[in-house]
Amino acid sequence: MSRYYASNIPFINEISGHILFAGGKKIRPLLAVFSAKLCGLNTDGKVYDLALIPEYLHAASLLHDDVVDGGKLRRGKPSAYEIWGNQGTVLAGDFLYAKAIELATRFSDIRIARTIAETVELMSEGEVLQLLHAKEPNFDEKTYLDIIYRKTTALISASCKIGAVFAGGDDKEISALSDYGFYLGQAFQMIDDLLDYTADSGELGKAIGTDLAEGKLTLPLVAGLEMAAGAEKERLLLILKKKGHTKEELDWVRDLLDTTGAFRYTRQKAEGLIEAGCGILDIFKPSWERDVLKGLARFVIERRK
Amino acid sequence: MSRYYASNIPFINEISGHILFAGGKKIRPLLAVFSAKLCGLNTDGKVYDLALIPEYLHAASLLHDDVVDGGKLRRGKPSAYEIWGNQGTVLAGDFLYAKAIELATRFSDIRIARTIAETVELMSEGEVLQLLHAKEPNFDEKTYLDIIYRKTTALISASCKIGAVFAGGDDKEISALSDYGFYLGQAFQMIDDLLDYTADSGELGKAIGTDLAEGKLTLPLVAGLEMAAGAEKERLLLILKKKGHTKEELDWVRDLLDTTGAFRYTRQKAEGLIEAGCGILDIFKPSWERDVLKGLARFVIERRK
Repeated sequence: MSRYYASNIPFINEISGHILFAGGKKIRPLLAVFSAKLCGLNTDGKVYDLALIPEYLHAASLLHDDVVDGGKLRRGKPSAYEIWGNQGTVLAGDFLYAKAIELATRFSDIRIARTIAETVELMSEGEVLQLLHAKEPNFDEKTYLDIIYRKTTALISASCKIGAVFAGGDDKEISALSDYGFYLGQAFQMIDDLLDYTADSGELGKAIGTDLAEGKLTLPLVAGLEMAAGAEKERLLLILKKKGHTKEELDWVRDLLDTTGAFRYTRQKAEGLIEAGCGILDIFKPSWERDVLKGLARFVIERRK
Repeated sequence: MSRYYASNIPFINEISGHILFAGGKKIRPLLAVFSAKLCGLNTDGKVYDLALIPEYLHAASLLHDDVVDGGKLRRGKPSAYEIWGNQGTVLAGDFLYAKAIELATRFSDIRIARTIAETVELMSEGEVLQLLHAKEPNFDEKTYLDIIYRKTTALISASCKIGAVFAGGDDKEISALSDYGFYLGQAFQMIDDLLDYTADSGELGKAIGTDLAEGKLTLPLVAGLEMAAGAEKERLLLILKKKGHTKEELDWVRDLLDTTGAFRYTRQKAEGLIEAGCGILDIFKPSWERDVLKGLARFVIERRK
């Protein structure tokens, strides 16, 4: 992964390396490679270059996210902006975006560059929408689905799509893998939202309850507001309007989302999407590559971090 | 220009429009169009789409710059981050970068997308270098030339190059126009640096003396340090190390750069580059398009804002 990200400027490499080599699940590169394999790619080293593209974009978005959100912990380490400040972090993020897109233009099929460019556009729109909604909460499931599509899913779906395009898949195959990525991505973000309440902070590598603190629109909250009533709903709305919460308030919200069934609703929704995504792969004949992609989809809902 | 920048999200359009429609010289689109015409393009409306790409990139870099530099005035208006805050401004910049690259992938010649991607990479490196040098001043002309190449010139040269590629210019023509853009870009930034000391603030549309305040490495300073001696040099170095300057100090620096000949040196250097750039265009036979490009080069050194 260090092959291309390197800039001539050590400072950029330091920041990029901080985020790129901090662990992370590397699910996007895996999706690109196995989508390509499922579309008949035998061995071609260049697929690993292709697979770097979504990981660089993901890292770039994390850098800008941390500036925007003010998150202090990322992948179990202090966030880049805590170490290098806003300025360097914004610019290193710009560099990684550019590097990813530059990599995407190295492939002869223009659809790869185009898909990546459109994805970056969606991602930046998603972040802006999220920012706007954090200021003026609109807890509506449709809005939520729209934001996570742009912010998270577009890139996951693009990872699958570029793999399929690279391998020379036909339109039906490309479209099936894009759709599989769509379902996987939406479910991925829902589980992410769930883990923000229910995971162990040490295991997750970032602080718990930050979505609530930032007023972020997430599915457990959307569902909780729908399901709660009377005094409980009033208190939840009050807490959502506050900046900063006590540990007691966070615990209260967590209990409420648990007892109202909001966590269960979120998980079931994600499971339904994963099932749909796996079903789509049945246009391909059985193979170990197909099993891997189905397995990655299961991992998304079973992961604990 | 509003044809493509539009996002589905009004907030992004508001920020993008703030910077895109604030005036500015629009020199990059002009260079792209006239480079294409010089390479034999007759009429093709798509060249105007092409010409938007560098202007979007430029606008995106201004948005991120303002976050990084903390500039309060831009194109005669309050800077975007003064109005919308760091977060929205970073993300709207991301959107414009993405939009520009997405536009670049709409052309069938992959060299256009590749040139643009490489340019964005250089631009982000240039900003990082500038940031690093603002913290640890290294007033060396070579370093200065390297920074402005990435920060400013790469995009100006790319504007010319993509015009030539779009019009189907041959390798010699593409390379001549890239080189012309290189000379023009370097001279452009030198004059920019000069105007930061000598222009009228109202006319320039941004505050005067900000480069000094930010400890930015610019050619007048590089030359001034080379040319000053004894107590004057000592005082200049002391002022450079300070954060924030009095009006008296700024006036003193300006006088010093004037009397030592640093301003003259900067202008002569820029004029030499412009001459070289115009000379390169002589591989093309005389035409009004060639005259326009030579005229734009003259404008760069004669402009007062």
